[in-house]
Amino acid sequence: VTLTPRTPDASIRRVTRGEIVAIGSELLLGGRPDTNSLFLTDGLATAGVDVRFKSVVGDDVADLVAVLRTACRRADVVLMTGGLGPTRDDCTRRAVATLTGRALRRHPEAFEIMRKRLAVWGRTPTAAQRRQALIPAGAEVLDNPIGSAPGFCLTWKRCLLAALPGVPREAQQMFARSLAPKLRARVRGAAPTIGHRLIHTFGLPETEVEARLDGVIRAGPGLRLGFLSSPLGVTVSLTEVRANGAPPRLERSVRTVYRRLGPYVYGEEQETMEQIVGRQLAARRLTLAVAESCTGGLIGHRLTEVAGSSTYLDRVAVCYSNRAKERMLGVPARLIRRRGAVSAEVAAAMAAGIRARSGAAIGLSVTGIAGPGGATPDKPVGLVFVGLETPDLRRARVQEFRFHGDRQTIKLRASQAALNLLRQWLLSRPAALTKR
Amino acid sequence: VTLTPRTPDASIRRVTRGEIVAIGSELLLGGRPDTNSLFLTDGLATAGVDVRFKSVVGDDVADLVAVLRTACRRADVVLMTGGLGPTRDDCTRRAVATLTGRALRRHPEAFEIMRKRLAVWGRTPTAAQRRQALIPAGAEVLDNPIGSAPGFCLTWKRCLLAALPGVPREAQQMFARSLAPKLRARVRGAAPTIGHRLIHTFGLPETEVEARLDGVIRAGPGLRLGFLSSPLGVTVSLTEVRANGAPPRLERSVRTVYRRLGPYVYGEEQETMEQIVGRQLAARRLTLAVAESCTGGLIGHRLTEVAGSSTYLDRVAVCYSNRAKERMLGVPARLIRRRGAVSAEVAAAMAAGIRARSGAAIGLSVTGIAGPGGATPDKPVGLVFVGLETPDLRRARVQEFRFHGDRQTIKLRASQAALNLLRQWLLSRPAALTKR
Repeated sequence: VTLTPRTPDASIRRVTRGEIVAIGSELLLGGRPDTNSLFLTDGLATAGVDVRFKSVVGDDVADLVAVLRTACRRADVVLMTGGLGPTRDDCTRRAVATLTGRALRRHPEAFEIMRKRLAVWGRTPTAAQRRQALIPAGAEVLDNPIGSAPGFCLTWKRCLLAALPGVPREAQQMFARSLAPKLRARVRGAAPTIGHRLIHTFGLPETEVEARLDGVIRAGPGLRLGFLSSPLGVTVSLTEVRANGAPPRLERSVRTVYRRLGPYVYGEEQETMEQIVGRQLAARRLTLAVAESCTGGLIGHRLTEVAGSSTYLDRVAVCYSNRAKERMLGVPARLIRRRGAVSAEVAAAMAAGIRARSGAAIGLSVTGIAGPGGATPDKPVGLVFVGLETPDLRRARVQEFRFHGDRQTIKLRASQAALNLLRQWLLSRPAALTKR
Repeated sequence: VTLTPRTPDASIRRVTRGEIVAIGSELLLGGRPDTNSLFLTDGLATAGVDVRFKSVVGDDVADLVAVLRTACRRADVVLMTGGLGPTRDDCTRRAVATLTGRALRRHPEAFEIMRKRLAVWGRTPTAAQRRQALIPAGAEVLDNPIGSAPGFCLTWKRCLLAALPGVPREAQQMFARSLAPKLRARVRGAAPTIGHRLIHTFGLPETEVEARLDGVIRAGPGLRLGFLSSPLGVTVSLTEVRANGAPPRLERSVRTVYRRLGPYVYGEEQETMEQIVGRQLAARRLTLAVAESCTGGLIGHRLTEVAGSSTYLDRVAVCYSNRAKERMLGVPARLIRRRGAVSAEVAAAMAAGIRARSGAAIGLSVTGIAGPGGATPDKPVGLVFVGLETPDLRRARVQEFRFHGDRQTIKLRASQAALNLLRQWLLSRPAALTKR
């Protein structure tokens, strides 16, 4: 749910409008994160282009021509990704040639770059790879520093049409190096500038986040306010479309969000909770050991997505069985019998156990019922306890949560709650605290 | 890269064409998996509708009207998701009313269903929620059995236009219960039928998968062959568009894929490696313990995404430090010093250690260099050893891999390689093997 302005004003009409066209029959199926759009939307905004539409189309020349025709009518900048590979049915080159009525010609420079790159690997271009140097006449080649497919761009009916590879890393490098400078030159100084900010919160429902900002941030044509809800929390999105000479409002609005939601804000932009916690642990030279039950390894997985995490993460014990909780963490069998494996007492014992056995400065634990099975009348699916034992506390602190959702959602929320408890404790410690 | 037919024939022209329109400014940013499209594309195919386009548009009435106008021109069935929420700027209802020239009216039945559902939770509809019962005149209401926003559908210019909620679970239930029967009735018996099959492989590069099927499966207008590559392997996608009375080709082609790729195939359709391994473990009543290093908990996380995994997963030890490998698994310090933590010998010792300490029937281990740091001249980033110790082998078997990609990709590939080694061993065991 995003609150957008309903009355367009002059500044909005002058904005350079962008459309992303993703090409590939497999993309119509969905199911995987679309990492290109995230990067390109951001990059386009930085260059002053407001992405208003995205289209996905299969590897079919006629379908792609139809999509491009529509895109060029409603947008000033059209960015294609995919369909530049070597097989016969990678059809971006042919579709652009058909749309613009230009012939496909072998581009000597593009061919030479490809030949040289393959020579480094001791190979010569195959017939299929030669096809990749076919570029619509008059188009400018965009070099691909890390892959074989060159991109290209041209202007047609006052619209800038650019073709990038489908591989995210290649598309991103080509965009940053070759296309972004061209875009900045094209979007004239007189055009409105666009600013984006994402502020991530955890611990409040979306309705409550919205209510706290209602009337305080005046969304309108120049400032769009949006809310993105996920199992990892609610993200507040602010987009400023600022006419040349108009006063900036974005930073003031960001400060307002912090004033209203402060304790719930954990990060900004592309930062993840695990990156933030990792940075704080490294700055304080503290080591961490984790005992997981219902999250099944997700906390360890998330922490180790961050490069360099081996400097602060010592170990993770995933104790799915009660016996594992007793043996790996020293949780007394009697405690589990009396209180149940999902209880505040066992969460505390798990945090204390992993800390003592590992010798790490901090012990973090989670136990809960991810469902769909395992619930009892007094312990419903979604009941989760998070435990934290640290050098400064006489005993582990425990938080109780009741999460809604399916198994995957509850695991995600529980992992986020555990990392957030750790983050809050770390914030209260000076960065100079010595290692235990 | 997908090989699609280039010469349309009569059967294809008669296919009912579908377009999915996803509504929400946050979706333009990308970054999260689009779970709705996966389900809806499949559901539409089953109902005989071929999804050819997908559009993403922000919460803006004018933009959405433009997208719907284009969609209704090129497709016979247009499925919208999102924009049905209670806030003022959820704009699907208004956009459809504007497009079709129909007034928005409070739908008594939809309002009554909402009122009753809220009453169960002890609440009465707010002004915002009342807006959700506003439906374009003449549209049919689609009941939402698990959420507050009703959907609707109507026919405009011979195009079936349906609005579903953005929440995946709600969209899926509404589609399956209310919309699919309508679609099947609409797509007449004389129309071609569409069949989809996805076959997942692991262990071969995409070019090799393609080469093995080249010329053996004759792709053409009636049969589309595609390849979807990801860190988890290469998926072969077969789509049959079969005219009424034409002989079926799909099953024969599936058998051909198995004949050519047999040992590399691990599953079909929406099945994941962790579901398949879990089912095999349960059928053989075998328990599993895992020792992870570079995957950091990802294997445990994946195994516990499957409901009921507590019956076969005993524990996971994530040993990021050498000390943890010694203490949690009993890997000799001398072995780590001599061979290095990333070595076949340590992988074997980790599998043996976790098996012995847990008492589980099977011990599975991974050690490797996920990067970007940690490489040495003879041990590059991407070097991974996977170990497996089982009741029938005198010592652990170890596989060595050299993966390409970034940290996240290497973690995914390593977890898949480990689970695949386990899967292959399980396949060789009769389902009656007794528990150790």
